[in-house]
Amino acid sequence: MKKNSSTAALPPVCRLIEQIGSRWALLALLTLEEHGTLRFSELRRTTPGNVSERMLAATLHELEALRLVHRTLYPEVPPRVEYRLTEEARTLLPILHRLIEWSRRHTETGPQEELGIE
Amino acid sequence: MKKNSSTAALPPVCRLIEQIGSRWALLALLTLEEHGTLRFSELRRTTPGNVSERMLAATLHELEALRLVHRTLYPEVPPRVEYRLTEEARTLLPILHRLIEWSRRHTETGPQEELGIE
Repeated sequence: MKKNSSTAALPPVCRLIEQIGSRWALLALLTLEEHGTLRFSELRRTTPGNVSERMLAATLHELEALRLVHRTLYPEVPPRVEYRLTEEARTLLPILHRLIEWSRRHTETGPQEELGIE
Repeated sequence: MKKNSSTAALPPVCRLIEQIGSRWALLALLTLEEHGTLRFSELRRTTPGNVSERMLAATLHELEALRLVHRTLYPEVPPRVEYRLTEEARTLLPILHRLIEWSRRHTETGPQEELGIE
């Protein structure tokens, strides 16, 4: 059997992958990749799937802690906050696109009802 | 901005990625890749992180529905059940390994406390 990685050392990495792979994190990353720098309200409007304000805020907070999203606060009245991808996120996105392409082919060829797709 | 995929069409694909990226699914896939065909008890023992019987059974059921794991029942007494990766899973694993490598580098270079790693 081919062994590319020791599964024993995986738990911290698994947690990171779970965070990146969660629906809103993935959609926020892709939306920022597509549109560049966005204000919170723009990002919320542009992200597909009607994300709630609270959920998007929590997702962005997490992505910021993971060093995947950069948040800039402009001290205006009212304060303006903008989000953009970090350079590290840009090295991740080609891998996510491969995963998305694989998943798209897999869902298209497979029995939909078994996938539990909404 | 580079646009590799339409985010609007993503929700079903996102659900699949969430399922694949969940901790036990990922660990079960990697363990089966490393060890080949395994019985349930062997898979549970070999999967890192002390997965409960119930959680592993639910994970394998989901992976079977996703056509990533093949389950064979041998009608012996007591019945023997073996699990192995499907061919489709084998086309997914190189992508997962790239994601794991990226995540490993990212967790190694970054501030651990911010990642929320246990």
